Amino acid sequence: MEFKFAKRMNYLKASDIREILKVSERPEMISFAGGLPAPELFPVEEIKEVSRIVLEEEGAKALQYATTEGYAPLRRWISNRMNTRLGTNFNYEDLLITHGSQQALDLSGKVFLDEEDVVLCESPTYLAAISALRAYGCEFVEVPTDNDGMIMEELERILENTSKVKIIYMIPDFQNPTGRSWSLERREQLVKAANKHQVMIIEDNPYGELRFEGRDLPSVKSFDQIGCVLCLGTFSKTFCPGYRIGWIAGDKRIIDKYVLVKQGTDLQCNTLAQMEIAKYLELYDIDEHIAKIREVYRRRRDLTVQTMGEEFPEGVTFTRPQGGLFAWVELPVGVNAREVLVESLKMNVAFVPGGSFFPNGGKENNFRINFSNMSEERIIKGIRLLGGILRQFV
Amino acid sequence: MEFKFAKRMNYLKASDIREILKVSERPEMISFAGGLPAPELFPVEEIKEVSRIVLEEEGAKALQYATTEGYAPLRRWISNRMNTRLGTNFNYEDLLITHGSQQALDLSGKVFLDEEDVVLCESPTYLAAISALRAYGCEFVEVPTDNDGMIMEELERILENTSKVKIIYMIPDFQNPTGRSWSLERREQLVKAANKHQVMIIEDNPYGELRFEGRDLPSVKSFDQIGCVLCLGTFSKTFCPGYRIGWIAGDKRIIDKYVLVKQGTDLQCNTLAQMEIAKYLELYDIDEHIAKIREVYRRRRDLTVQTMGEEFPEGVTFTRPQGGLFAWVELPVGVNAREVLVESLKMNVAFVPGGSFFPNGGKENNFRINFSNMSEERIIKGIRLLGGILRQFV
Repeated sequence: MEFKFAKRMNYLKASDIREILKVSERPEMISFAGGLPAPELFPVEEIKEVSRIVLEEEGAKALQYATTEGYAPLRRWISNRMNTRLGTNFNYEDLLITHGSQQALDLSGKVFLDEEDVVLCESPTYLAAISALRAYGCEFVEVPTDNDGMIMEELERILENTSKVKIIYMIPDFQNPTGRSWSLERREQLVKAANKHQVMIIEDNPYGELRFEGRDLPSVKSFDQIGCVLCLGTFSKTFCPGYRIGWIAGDKRIIDKYVLVKQGTDLQCNTLAQMEIAKYLELYDIDEHIAKIREVYRRRRDLTVQTMGEEFPEGVTFTRPQGGLFAWVELPVGVNAREVLVESLKMNVAFVPGGSFFPNGGKENNFRINFSNMSEERIIKGIRLLGGILRQFV
Repeated sequence: MEFKFAKRMNYLKASDIREILKVSERPEMISFAGGLPAPELFPVEEIKEVSRIVLEEEGAKALQYATTEGYAPLRRWISNRMNTRLGTNFNYEDLLITHGSQQALDLSGKVFLDEEDVVLCESPTYLAAISALRAYGCEFVEVPTDNDGMIMEELERILENTSKVKIIYMIPDFQNPTGRSWSLERREQLVKAANKHQVMIIEDNPYGELRFEGRDLPSVKSFDQIGCVLCLGTFSKTFCPGYRIGWIAGDKRIIDKYVLVKQGTDLQCNTLAQMEIAKYLELYDIDEHIAKIREVYRRRRDLTVQTMGEEFPEGVTFTRPQGGLFAWVELPVGVNAREVLVESLKMNVAFVPGGSFFPNGGKENNFRINFSNMSEERIIKGIRLLGGILRQFV
């Protein structure tokens, strides 16, 4: 039988990263490819304890169907946390629990996007946001960026000249893939531009809590007076990704639409996972836990950046992120990072070529380095090997 | 700001059931409304034990990101189980773990449906399948059914006269909402019709293991020679729905497309949940557990049907399902079940009016009774009260 798939299947492609990740799972591989948190920092003992308590106290409830909106105590904790850290003003009812923040992206496509609608994004942008939204048939227009976020003159020009723009997608802190953060001024300007053109902003902030230095900035949402900003968050980077628990928060009238759409999509998130995380947050000090993660990642960032400085040839530049999991490497024009990767994999070193982070393609002289998942020893060894390979190309 | 949602938001409506469920959660309510398993049968102690073991033996792995396809040992167990029970011939690689079988429906829409494609379904059909698929802009054509499944002459006539049919959606055993099962002959004929017209079949089987009497029949898939049948399954009814773990199995070339689409949708299912279920299946006898569920539900079905026979007025008919969670009640033409519900809720008895189970509407003289979630005492009391109310209408 010849299978007749939906049109969208013609333009959805297997993610480069997933394919590289499969290779990079071999134990001998020094992998800068994934976006994996350091598993040795997962609070396994504490989770054993909260799992026991939740099942003992409310076993039947934890294993039963529950509301689509999510577990209320968890939503309360998250909205309080956001209000304290991000300068927002959410009630728990403004918030829907999602299957990781990746699902919040998928639901955003479902709620907002018709075919041929336009999404503006940073250039480069988070690869899996492209996959999530593209499934709804949208087009991407890439907004040029510098070290402070999108360049406002470029954004304004694009907004003036592009019809059907529905969403501006952005990551304010330690962006994936570049590691860069938006300046305070740009955050405020972004909201003004979105207001003027009546466009929604999706502010995706998975890494904000992982700041190694400098001061936290207020969220883009904190400048929003009309409900045009939606905030995405997740426990994947500050707690454990295996639970697949994230959220979306925004104007209640919009969140109601997300709830409706999530009902048909998968009914609700895992009840037990939500209750276990809520119990952990009640019994333990997550700030202490996050401080530990920050300290380990900061050292790994330091080593990565320092070793890149020592080992990478002239003409190769890279970011020095103030937090998060990623740094971004730019090669001289004409050098193709996919070709570098072929050589690098032979030496058991993996990274993700940057081309896939540009939804409209065409920029192959860059790659992403993840520094959260490898030991210090392997970081030094891997970056040195990579430096040697780069010298063959540059 | 005036929010500009996607077109699909105009035809997605809040589920009746969800709204009724909210009311029916009040403790004084005798609810035949939901599709909830009996929580007193959840194996809480065993789950406490497997949770402890999984976190002890493989804590970091259980809390980390994992593959989109799902946990291999769990996929192996499921494919073996299907092959033994359903006469299929699956390898574990033909199977993707999904966030409940509800997500398998959503992904089916994403993989197969363009706007204006047609889905054929039983009339009536599972409410949430309508919500899942409708989000992709399809039309539904309802195929008339009798006690043995779709009426084949009607199906054939519709297939001949309808263009753009992509999917036939059906539930072979103890269908939601009617409780009816397909005969062996009709299963075979369905595959023939689908082959002839080159249409996919989605065989959704959440209740098949809950048979109280009669003999198990081979699946529709077991008659499939060309890969046109996709099988959906779930642990929600035989184990615990709170975990949100289901699956889809089918031709590997199709499952690869589902994997691709799931990557962008939510990356993967909860790692811990998959490992805990796999560990439970390794250490405990799920057949023994399912036998307990069957016995309790069988008694509840008996009581429900017997009491309906005694208390419902003449002119009201109902099904006597051989398994599952639901029975279906038909009222004389002209009686509107939504009006019955208004009176019934005043007496603290809830059920779901049948109108929503017809995607194209127009049939209001019927309702669904769930018998799995109430104690025997409450079943008798509730059905008696309902009988009294029905006598006011008939």
